[in-house]
Amino acid sequence: MTTLLISADSNLDDWMDAWREAAPHRPVVCHGRAPYDPAAIQYALTWKPPAGALNALPNLKVAFNLGAGVDAVMADPTFPSHIPLVRLVDQDLTNRMGEWVVLQVLTHFRQTLGYLELQRTKTWRDLTQPAARSARVGLMGYGTLARHCTPILRGLGFNVHGWARGPKESDITLHHGEEGLANFLARTDILVCLLPLTEATRGILDAKLIGQLSRGTPVGPVLINAGRGGLQNEADILAALQDGTLKGASLDVFNEEPLPATSPMWDAPNLIITPHVAAITDPASAVGNIVEQIDAFEAGAPLQNVVDRGHGY
Amino acid sequence: MTTLLISADSNLDDWMDAWREAAPHRPVVCHGRAPYDPAAIQYALTWKPPAGALNALPNLKVAFNLGAGVDAVMADPTFPSHIPLVRLVDQDLTNRMGEWVVLQVLTHFRQTLGYLELQRTKTWRDLTQPAARSARVGLMGYGTLARHCTPILRGLGFNVHGWARGPKESDITLHHGEEGLANFLARTDILVCLLPLTEATRGILDAKLIGQLSRGTPVGPVLINAGRGGLQNEADILAALQDGTLKGASLDVFNEEPLPATSPMWDAPNLIITPHVAAITDPASAVGNIVEQIDAFEAGAPLQNVVDRGHGY
Repeated sequence: MTTLLISADSNLDDWMDAWREAAPHRPVVCHGRAPYDPAAIQYALTWKPPAGALNALPNLKVAFNLGAGVDAVMADPTFPSHIPLVRLVDQDLTNRMGEWVVLQVLTHFRQTLGYLELQRTKTWRDLTQPAARSARVGLMGYGTLARHCTPILRGLGFNVHGWARGPKESDITLHHGEEGLANFLARTDILVCLLPLTEATRGILDAKLIGQLSRGTPVGPVLINAGRGGLQNEADILAALQDGTLKGASLDVFNEEPLPATSPMWDAPNLIITPHVAAITDPASAVGNIVEQIDAFEAGAPLQNVVDRGHGY
Repeated sequence: MTTLLISADSNLDDWMDAWREAAPHRPVVCHGRAPYDPAAIQYALTWKPPAGALNALPNLKVAFNLGAGVDAVMADPTFPSHIPLVRLVDQDLTNRMGEWVVLQVLTHFRQTLGYLELQRTKTWRDLTQPAARSARVGLMGYGTLARHCTPILRGLGFNVHGWARGPKESDITLHHGEEGLANFLARTDILVCLLPLTEATRGILDAKLIGQLSRGTPVGPVLINAGRGGLQNEADILAALQDGTLKGASLDVFNEEPLPATSPMWDAPNLIITPHVAAITDPASAVGNIVEQIDAFEAGAPLQNVVDRGHGY
């Protein structure tokens, strides 16, 4: 009944404390801290585990990912295909992502960078400002995070639509599949990417995609990515910002993190960089969810939010 | 049946065009452009009219203000007390104000200025970030604009409460009156001021008020003012930003506008200045509302949003 914490993150104590608080009756050990018996491990809490580490646990029942993106675990070919991998779906994480997405949409739409520059030069001048109802926000990747953002963005007055891999129920217009992508992009002034990183999505944010975005509002098109850096062709994004094909962008993630000080992205015009902080997992909130899942699982309930190995998320 | 446009703003053509579009059968004249018969004027569309101008219209039935704040008309002692003055309540104006308020709340809460400075120095480092549920946004002045912001801010996860002059119906906690103000401020991390400017509110945003705000979150207290510059004691706000009593502020309005280039406010730390653009009135939208009101008024319906002369708004 032992749980193993196996994470590449530095805040291991926070996770261990959260676990002991939420499940004092469930023993927990931390990979890399002290020896443990691999055969005793039934559950793993994992974030970017070293390749092969999960395969070394013969009695592992479930692996719980400690963030929304499971691309690091999926990239480990030794991860046993019969072990369910559970994505973290957590209200705290969802809320934080919503804060970041709505902030970035409004920052570009209301021209914060332009006004900060006017302020720096002590210039009192207004910039042409359309109303939110004249702009269309496109949510690319329509899962829990996008669903959370939709009513907030609509409450602000934006037109919101989405794109998903396959058809889904939704109360907004949802384009889907390869064939729906061009229509979606042509109707999007502000693109918010919340896609998982899979073999199908790697590098999808490139010049071809950017070139298909609507140019129907003076403050767009804008690219906002809170998914994974691997979705980005950063040379293409940089070029699009430099030549004005993109009016602005916000990127929380990069192909190489930390973004090297030598990267030209730091100085790209109208680019807002945040250091992979859009939605940081709160250990107490996430562990609470996971312990509830384990209790239900042991009582016979099916696991929620299990990764589909075929789709990779 | 003639309507008079009498505005200190520069976009008179936009208003005249909007009127002719919305009410082609209703003659309209523009003050200062060509002579007109004062006795023919029944309705006035007005924005910061010169003192005495409205008093010169013997058959004026209603004056419609072309913005949310009526302090300029109220300051004219010759404005006849028997003429109803109608405030502009317009969904477009409300939406734009919502965009600006939510943007400013998130900008400070998610530390945009801090991250822009880290980006400038090519530094990949995260700042301690609480979740929205740990912060309390206080809406001071709880009318149409605040009511619009409430569900959006709650959707983002913030705790929202308000303060109003007198008791009002609301589904959030609403403090009221002089006696409720201290309680309201002590429970507010991010103060959003949407008050009208009256003799009771002039200079209310001063050191005494700022000193009462909660210091319960590392990113607060924050002061956001989209009301009128006359609400502000700007020397007190500057000092509070300089000594850290305020962690941040966003001001769209100032005692003197345009803000003079010599003002020390331009360089105040963690202050975001926008040049009175939070919610610009869209002539087409506003005129549509006003023509509807006139049609209803002539059919015998009572006027909506009439200013209470006693309260001054």
